[in-house]
This record gives sequence, C-alpha cells and structure tokens, in this order.
Amino acid sequence: MSQKRIAIFGSTGSIGTQALEVIAANKDKFSAEVLTAQNNDELLVQQALKFNPYIVVIGDEKKYPKVKQALARTDIQVFAGEKALEEVAEMDAYDLMLAAIVGYAGLKPTLQALESGKPVALANKETLVVAGDIVMKKALEKRVPVIPVDSEHSAIFQCLVGETRNKIEKVILTASGGPFRGKKPNFLVNVKRDHALQHPNWTMGAKITIDSATLMNKGLEMIEAKWLFNLKPDQIQVVIHPQSIIHSMVQFEDGSIKSQMGLPNMKLPIQYALGFPHRIPNDMPRLNFRSMSTLTFEEPDIKTFKNLGLAIDALTKGGNLPCILNAANEIAVYAFLRNRIGFLDMTEVVEQTMVKIPFIESPTLDEYLDTDGEARSFAASLIQM
Amino acid sequence: MSQKRIAIFGSTGSIGTQALEVIAANKDKFSAEVLTAQNNDELLVQQALKFNPYIVVIGDEKKYPKVKQALARTDIQVFAGEKALEEVAEMDAYDLMLAAIVGYAGLKPTLQALESGKPVALANKETLVVAGDIVMKKALEKRVPVIPVDSEHSAIFQCLVGETRNKIEKVILTASGGPFRGKKPNFLVNVKRDHALQHPNWTMGAKITIDSATLMNKGLEMIEAKWLFNLKPDQIQVVIHPQSIIHSMVQFEDGSIKSQMGLPNMKLPIQYALGFPHRIPNDMPRLNFRSMSTLTFEEPDIKTFKNLGLAIDALTKGGNLPCILNAANEIAVYAFLRNRIGFLDMTEVVEQTMVKIPFIESPTLDEYLDTDGEARSFAASLIQM
Repeated sequence: MSQKRIAIFGSTGSIGTQALEVIAANKDKFSAEVLTAQNNDELLVQQALKFNPYIVVIGDEKKYPKVKQALARTDIQVFAGEKALEEVAEMDAYDLMLAAIVGYAGLKPTLQALESGKPVALANKETLVVAGDIVMKKALEKRVPVIPVDSEHSAIFQCLVGETRNKIEKVILTASGGPFRGKKPNFLVNVKRDHALQHPNWTMGAKITIDSATLMNKGLEMIEAKWLFNLKPDQIQVVIHPQSIIHSMVQFEDGSIKSQMGLPNMKLPIQYALGFPHRIPNDMPRLNFRSMSTLTFEEPDIKTFKNLGLAIDALTKGGNLPCILNAANEIAVYAFLRNRIGFLDMTEVVEQTMVKIPFIESPTLDEYLDTDGEARSFAASLIQM
Repeated sequence: MSQKRIAIFGSTGSIGTQALEVIAANKDKFSAEVLTAQNNDELLVQQALKFNPYIVVIGDEKKYPKVKQALARTDIQVFAGEKALEEVAEMDAYDLMLAAIVGYAGLKPTLQALESGKPVALANKETLVVAGDIVMKKALEKRVPVIPVDSEHSAIFQCLVGETRNKIEKVILTASGGPFRGKKPNFLVNVKRDHALQHPNWTMGAKITIDSATLMNKGLEMIEAKWLFNLKPDQIQVVIHPQSIIHSMVQFEDGSIKSQMGLPNMKLPIQYALGFPHRIPNDMPRLNFRSMSTLTFEEPDIKTFKNLGLAIDALTKGGNLPCILNAANEIAVYAFLRNRIGFLDMTEVVEQTMVKIPFIESPTLDEYLDTDGEARSFAASLIQM
C-alpha cells in the first residue's frame, strides 16, 4: 500500500491527537498533510513542527498571526477562519479526510471533502445526526466511502466487509451504560461535572463523555447508524454491555450475528479507518479471553436516562428533529460542563427545544442550518433563565 | 441466485437430514440431486421419494436390491458400494457437495469432488484431520472453495469474508466444554455412554457428541482449522465458553477480533454453507441480547481432558500423527458407544496407538491410508485385550 496523505480536521482533540500517534507509528503508510484546530494554537504549532504538513488551519482568526509567526521558518502554509476549512477541504493536498471536528462545525468541511471525491473517516457524529441524508447522498453520488471512526460504527462497518450482497436484519449497538448505570433520577439530580467526566471504560473528549453519561451519545449513534448503514429505526437496537468488549454487532437476515471486539481503545478504530481496507499490524494490547471471565448484557433504562428516549423519538420521526435534538444537546452539555445547569436539566433543555422548534419533514441544507441556529438560540435562552 | 444442485454424501445422518430440511424450506434455491447413505436404507428411500434426486447411493451393497426395488417406479438411479460414492462424486449431476459422511470414509469422495472442480461444504472433519494437506492442496489447485459446516469453522469462515488481504493473528475456537466441564478424572472414570451422549447445547450425531464430552472434538477442530485457514499451531487457541453463543473468533494482525454468534443450531451453518456467498432469510429463532445476561470464558482443563492435549500434540508434530490420532479415536469412541471400554480408556487407546504407529513426516495419500489401517488395527487389538 502506498503512502496515504491524511487531512485531520480537528487535530488537537482527542481523536486528532490519537490519529497523529497512529500516523507517527506508521510513517511508511501515512503522512499528515493537513492539520486544523479551532482554538488550541499551541498544540497545533507543535503538531505542525513535528509532522511538517502542507497546510495548517487555525479556526480562530485572532490566533492567525501567532501561528503564522511560529511556523515562519517552515514551508507550511497557514490559513485561518471557518471559510478556510471549506477551501482546504476542496484542495487536492490529501487522499483521506479524518473529520474529527467536534460538533456541528464539522458538517461543511465534510461535505466539501465528499464533493471533491475524497473518502472521509468520520469521527464527527453530529455531521450525520444533523444532515445524514445529505451527507450520505453526496457520498453515494461521488462514490466515495464514509468510514466511521466511532468504535460502535467501526465495529458494524468491519462486520459488513464482504457482506454487501447480504441484507442486514438489525444492528445491535452496545453501550457501556456510562458511569451512572443502574442509578436513578434521585441520584442523577445531584451529579456534578467532574463525576460525569469519569467514564468507566473509554478515554474521550469532554462533550462525548457527558453524552455517554446521559446515554444521549447512544441515541446520537442510533441516528448515525441509520444513515451510515441505510437502516430503518426499528432495525437499530441498543444493548447495555458494561465491559465495552463487544463494540457492536450486525444480525443478518439468516439470523447469523457478527460482532467486532477488542479492548476499549480508540486508536484501533482510528487506525482501521485510516488504513481501510488494509488492517495494519500494531503492538496495542490484546484482549485475552482466557483471563476475561464474563460479558454481560442488559436493557437500557430509558425511564431514567430520558435522553436516549428523546433521541429514539427524533430517530423515528426524522426530518429536522435530530438536528434540533443535537443543537439543543450541544448547548445543554456545554452549559453543564460550565456548571450552569444540572445533570437532569440537560434533558429538559433538549425536550423543550424539540417541542418548540417547528418540525420540517424533508429539510434542505439551508433549512438544517436555520433549524440548528434556532434550536441553539432557544436552548440558550432556556439556560439564561 | 439460480437453483443450486446439491449432492449430500451422508444424507441420513444428523447433518444430512438437517440439510434436507434446509433444502425443503428453500426449494427455489436448492435441489437435492444426489443422496447417499451407508446403512440406513429405509430413511434413504424415504428421502429419495420426497426429494426425487437424480441418483442415490447405498454404501452397504447387500441393501442394494431393497433400495432398487423401493425406487423401481421412479426415475432415480440407484448405485451401491464404496466405489460408487467416488464415481458419483465425479459426475456432473451436482453443483456443490455436502460432505457429511461421518469418519474417515468421507475422504475419497471429497477428494473426487474437488478433483472434478466442485465446491465442497465440508461437515466431515476427519477428512481434514487425516489428510488436510492433500485436500486443501487439491482445492487450491482446482480453485474451488471448501466451505466448513462445523459451527466453529463456519464462524471463522464468516469472519474472514472480505478480509482476504488481512492477515490472521490467531483464531479462537470456542468450546462448550461438554457435559463434564469442571469434572475430574475420579468422576470421569465412571461415566457411561448414555450420560456422555447428553450434550448441554448441541444436538449432534453420537460420534461427535462423545468427542465433545472428551474434548477430542475440539482437538480435531484445531487440526481442521490449521488446514482450512492455513494456520500455524500456535495461532489456534481454544477457549471454553459454556453458553455456545460465540461460535468462534478471528483476531487480525491489528488486534481487532471478529466473531460470529447465534443460538446453537446446526441448521444455520449448514444453510450458510449451501447458500454461500448468499445468506438466506429464515425464521429460525433469533438470539436476544436483552434477555441473555451473561457470556463466560475459561481455560480448558487439559490435565483432566487429556484427549485435547493429545490432539494438540498431533497438531504440533504434524505428519501422519493426526491421522493416527483420528483412527485410534474412531475405534475408541465406537468401543465406548458399545460399552466395551470406559470413558478414560478412550484416551489410553489413542495415546498408546500414537506411540506405537511409526511417524511419517510428509506422508503420501497411500501412506495416510496405510497409517489409518495400521492405527485402527492396533487400537482394535488394544480393546480386544
């Protein structure tokens, strides 16, 4: 396999930094040609000096002079601002985009990459949650793969390799259940930021860690799965599996189930997405079935973790409802992370926003953008109160 | 997919009868064109009258007149004897052979089918245990697939679909542990035939059920896996998994593990092998992860279940040792089934035969045949005493 030029959109986040570790460990296979960051100029500069990309983009335009100066003695091109992300996504400087920008900001560069015929390794679930129909239609039109990076969707993607002729009966998304599995509302009402940030199995960014604690993450993943694998809502099941060993499963129409398993380690799905269709040897720790005694499964408690119920509602009704859910949730999670609202208030914000913002059955991209803006404003107004 | 003409070699056994159920349920996809049986002429005739094959073969020549007469008013051709099995295997009357003859007798027809360029769905593990190198070399030479029917190897085969470019790090064969898991020699020494025939999870023929109780079955499967998937002995691991839900696993060189799961039901791997590469919808019972609480794993107890150790020894040393192991084991198991020897005596017979019969590093097919005969004679002589 020849060297693949990778563009990492969101290189300073949890996924981005781990992707760079994968690239550093496989210099014969990958080069990092584009690195982008929203705010963290210091890490972006460090990464640029180490990986010598063709281009870096700093989202926050105020930080442009600092980045430009720090890289003045290199050949690296420096750009700034949201528009630059889209322009760079159009360029021919890379072979695969790793879309690792957190939240809604990842949508436009991802669409641009697909428009330019570039395969996308997708770590940004909001892109699919918000506008999965548009993204997947574009990928289909341009005949480029969207390779999921989320461990659950990577598992499903891996199980589907070589099975394109065989119909999926359902997918089973496993969920650790997060740090508060088994807890009830009277406990959750008092949960604080730092406690919610302690995930039992996975090391991830702050936003997704909170979403894991509320089970909203699993709801977003159900919506993501719908688009990635062209499923009906009732073909997507969530099962709580606290050990996070089985990363997800596919049941085919003959009843046979395939699963992908491993230790919880985001580097593996990242490496898989970068290398696909080739698996790359590595020395990451291996799962040992002889020393691992038990895998357990249980039903999710939707009565307590209402965010999952809201997400299933959005998944089932479709239209712009997942977009509303996602926008309100982003506002709510960041408010919770800043200790502005309580753990259960997040559900309130999302639910009220879903009731408030008008439903659109088949939104255009512009309508998605409007919906997103309106939902954010309304959710923010709830928090101000 | 057009109708596939199936030849079932061994149609009256456990695998054969279940295969006919699959064919009956999918008449648009399959027809049974060849049916063969060693002794059970009555069932063979029943099956022939129901499925109207082109040819039937009764192994026991004495029963030929009875079968011939019973089918006199049909167009079905009737043959008899061991030689006829090989001749029919050569014919162009079928598209896929299901090799479901139990024991060593399945070898020659299987080789003949491959020689004639016919894909083989292989339910006869002794074929690979005895002469796996010769069988797989023939399949490679004729470029026809050998599709395993054993649930473990079917699981591995399913996990490998679409992964041909990716190297296997190891395969993990799961084992229920049989009815005597956790028992010690002082218990096993008194085990009787009827108790050993009660497998906790799977309904199978008598020979394989006894082999499951002694763990010899898992040892034979390790040898089978070596040939089917071109593995080194240390790439094959056995893990006890009493629930028989995970049917086996493949670990790739990136550390990612894929598994195939389902309720224990031989019809699923049979159907998969007949339909490959197409999965066929069915209404077999589905696994429900929300109602299934626990999957457990443990190391096999090789000190107690010495047959597995003997098989690993044969696997590792290679040559004609697996052939010796298999021949002695067939004699021992049938002696146990006739209440001629005790449960632990089976190990004695196999071990002594492995010591006695001369080792050949790279046997020819004739040397395999000689080894088989000598090993059977010697094992039988041990039982006479």
